[in-house]
Amino acid sequence: MTSIEDFTSQYGLVKKIDAFGYMDWLKSNPDAPRKHGKVVLVTADTPLKASRGEGKTTTTIALIDALRARGIDATAVLRQPSMGITAAGSKGGASGGGKASLTHPELIDWGLCGEMAAIAAAQNLLVSFAEKAIDEGRLDDVLVPRVSEVPSRSLRSIAVDYGKGNVAERVVLTPTSEMMQIVCLSRSMDELGQRVSRMIAGTKDGKAVTFGEFIDLWRITDMLSGAVQPALTETVNGSPVYVHGGPFANVSIGIPTLISVEMACALHDVVIVEAGYGTDAGAQKWLDIACREYGAQWPSAAVVVTRASTWRDDPELAWRYPFHVNRLEGLDIPTFPLVNLWEGEDDQIPALRETAAKLEFRDPIIGNLYRDGGAGLASQLDGFVDALLNGSMPARPHSHKGMSVIENVKWVAEHAYGVPAERVLLKDGFVASRDAAVALCESAGLSLADLALVAVKSPATMTDNDRLPEDERTVTLKKVEVHAGAGLVQVNLTTSLTTPMPKIV
Amino acid sequence: MTSIEDFTSQYGLVKKIDAFGYMDWLKSNPDAPRKHGKVVLVTADTPLKASRGEGKTTTTIALIDALRARGIDATAVLRQPSMGITAAGSKGGASGGGKASLTHPELIDWGLCGEMAAIAAAQNLLVSFAEKAIDEGRLDDVLVPRVSEVPSRSLRSIAVDYGKGNVAERVVLTPTSEMMQIVCLSRSMDELGQRVSRMIAGTKDGKAVTFGEFIDLWRITDMLSGAVQPALTETVNGSPVYVHGGPFANVSIGIPTLISVEMACALHDVVIVEAGYGTDAGAQKWLDIACREYGAQWPSAAVVVTRASTWRDDPELAWRYPFHVNRLEGLDIPTFPLVNLWEGEDDQIPALRETAAKLEFRDPIIGNLYRDGGAGLASQLDGFVDALLNGSMPARPHSHKGMSVIENVKWVAEHAYGVPAERVLLKDGFVASRDAAVALCESAGLSLADLALVAVKSPATMTDNDRLPEDERTVTLKKVEVHAGAGLVQVNLTTSLTTPMPKIV
Repeated sequence: MTSIEDFTSQYGLVKKIDAFGYMDWLKSNPDAPRKHGKVVLVTADTPLKASRGEGKTTTTIALIDALRARGIDATAVLRQPSMGITAAGSKGGASGGGKASLTHPELIDWGLCGEMAAIAAAQNLLVSFAEKAIDEGRLDDVLVPRVSEVPSRSLRSIAVDYGKGNVAERVVLTPTSEMMQIVCLSRSMDELGQRVSRMIAGTKDGKAVTFGEFIDLWRITDMLSGAVQPALTETVNGSPVYVHGGPFANVSIGIPTLISVEMACALHDVVIVEAGYGTDAGAQKWLDIACREYGAQWPSAAVVVTRASTWRDDPELAWRYPFHVNRLEGLDIPTFPLVNLWEGEDDQIPALRETAAKLEFRDPIIGNLYRDGGAGLASQLDGFVDALLNGSMPARPHSHKGMSVIENVKWVAEHAYGVPAERVLLKDGFVASRDAAVALCESAGLSLADLALVAVKSPATMTDNDRLPEDERTVTLKKVEVHAGAGLVQVNLTTSLTTPMPKIV
Repeated sequence: MTSIEDFTSQYGLVKKIDAFGYMDWLKSNPDAPRKHGKVVLVTADTPLKASRGEGKTTTTIALIDALRARGIDATAVLRQPSMGITAAGSKGGASGGGKASLTHPELIDWGLCGEMAAIAAAQNLLVSFAEKAIDEGRLDDVLVPRVSEVPSRSLRSIAVDYGKGNVAERVVLTPTSEMMQIVCLSRSMDELGQRVSRMIAGTKDGKAVTFGEFIDLWRITDMLSGAVQPALTETVNGSPVYVHGGPFANVSIGIPTLISVEMACALHDVVIVEAGYGTDAGAQKWLDIACREYGAQWPSAAVVVTRASTWRDDPELAWRYPFHVNRLEGLDIPTFPLVNLWEGEDDQIPALRETAAKLEFRDPIIGNLYRDGGAGLASQLDGFVDALLNGSMPARPHSHKGMSVIENVKWVAEHAYGVPAERVLLKDGFVASRDAAVALCESAGLSLADLALVAVKSPATMTDNDRLPEDERTVTLKKVEVHAGAGLVQVNLTTSLTTPMPKIV
């Protein structure tokens, strides 16, 4: 009998799964055995330093180990970390730590099976084809940035054909590329190909020209044949973990691929989706883009991770953690605070419980996950398991399609950043940038209002200034960028870099 | 009992082999069963168009299939083609064709297991670390180019930090990078690390600064842990084929990795090494760099592939094929001409044999390898097998270490291009470039004369002008570039691009 094994192949120390093939087979075999797993969203407090994680991956791993120890068929879907950022030493990997680790963190952290590299090469090849199209008179300019797997500050702004043409260009990190967004959002190779076709290569006589008008699409899809397959690895306790998609929910969508989550839901009863941190960033993207606009499954429960120190050390910013928890509860998602302790903090547990009670949180889950792994959580999960397994399947939220981009950002600012519409400000040049995006879309036969909104933010702050009192905080819009292939419109807030290309520190 | 299987893992449809580990184990277990295979060098005529191969890989595959059909344990070591060049459509793949094919050409042609991508990322990360070193005052400039997996004409010359610093930089194709050279030449991870440490990052106060002085080496070696493992695939007839290392013998060394050839020699009786075309380029690099300077095994026989049309269609250039055959015979390597026919050329066989006889070649091997595969050659291999198996193991050639770079180029020009020393010309600026390289090496505690010479040439021509009569052909030297980590000094001839970054055509 056909099963997931027929779509799985060994790839060194991990397995790779033809998820497109498996989901397609399930569609053609509606009576085949499958599960309908529930999704748990793991997000985190906004960290005080972006380079020091709160422990989202560690939590995710500890949670599935603990759930499986209780006999629940739980799994997790993680995003592949950016090798370049890890290799540069700007940040640790994203494969957990201590007793809440993956068996082969070095594989996950150091390029996995070449998925990101293939995505980078595919987008860079598109740029090369666009250059050729310029030579052939089909294009006047190139709107797609080049991609780099490793960070380099000086690549934020480059000129190519230097000394002759001096064409100004940008370079973006692989996980933030439109090609990565397309891989994350596509549910079949056909859809992926159609999205690449719809990518706007540049303009000719002021009108959008898409790649579908001049490239051999198979060259790009052949390149991505391995990149579209989720990897399957496991925790040190043997729990299955899928890894697929890219990080950086502040500057892109930063979600695991939709196909990997759907496949996991067909194979397991509980699927923990590790989104990026923040209900303004990681969780916001899962809820408002993946679920609202792309049919991903709404979470049946959520966990918001913080460090005791993050919650405590900067009183001016202490409003952020309750904001995250309350936003999710306000969406009717049973939301569990989780405090991931550092060594030596066990004596703070009573005080943390007291604070949580004062804030009217659900009973927090507290533990040193690095030291104790899932075993440290198991006894605290009764409420979580109850809410998760006994809740009904959540309904789909309604789409924001058709809402103007400014209205859409105002909605996000109000709901996800706690800033009302009247304090959403437009920077000089924003309206011109928006108008240009509207015109570009129209020339491509699209409406800007039909694209899903991606707010591009700083990693460290939810608003223009998180330290001001609540009624003085603002959000300022800087620039609009169209990713027609991914079906996204990106709006840069003033707190963001226009090109997300970090300096190595 | 330990065997090669213990160093082999499945990687999708191919296998990956820990060749460093296996060769290390053989060294510690001198009584373990092993073979001492003989090396056959396959090279080709200089093609009339670089984009239309003579069929080196097809020949290599047909040859091992034919030898194995005769009961000889033959294998081949191929270089991994450049995905970018293939994907761009500038050139076909390099996985044979028709009946002389690999089982999964799409894997070989489209990125294999991410080896090249990892090499590109590693060198690009070095550039990022060098930028950081500039910020920290350890470096004044960066001498290592960035690397791109896909070709793009406009990347030949770029400026980074454009609009502010405007730092001029170059970008090279992955296979031509110093990092690829280091991977091809290293026989252990330790050696690889030492070579990366010795790479000259740039200068400070005019003196060379190496990467070993400021980077965490493990970041680079971790990145390359998969890239150093040869892939094992097979022909459609089940013959084993190893793939490892990069192409482009005209602009770099373009050899398969030394470790993959040595491993193959320990496992099989006959190892066909596919070098690039030309005794001026591909074969020259194997003989004069790999064998002469890096201890690779001297070939016990050679095959020089041509097309009937290449040999015939341009009478002015018809001197090149006999030149290639005669150079190898002159080195006491039994050399077999092989004519790879196109469809409809079978009737030319008698004329081809007559021409070969007139030129005093050995009996040529002639066949349509695409159509007939190894079966078309089997009956013609008696002389080849006899020369191969009955010859004694060849001696090592002596090193050119200590020879000045100009003397060395003159030696190569005379022996490999047929141009005597007095017609080796120095372009304006060459001496200054050479002197700067000497000074750079001295400041790094090296002697330029101790580096192995890599001539960087055009793909289409052996001399400045192959169409002139023999006694008028010249070779002009343009520029010197030091790759201290790889232990190589590159000399650009005027016929080469300074940055090998093709335009997509």
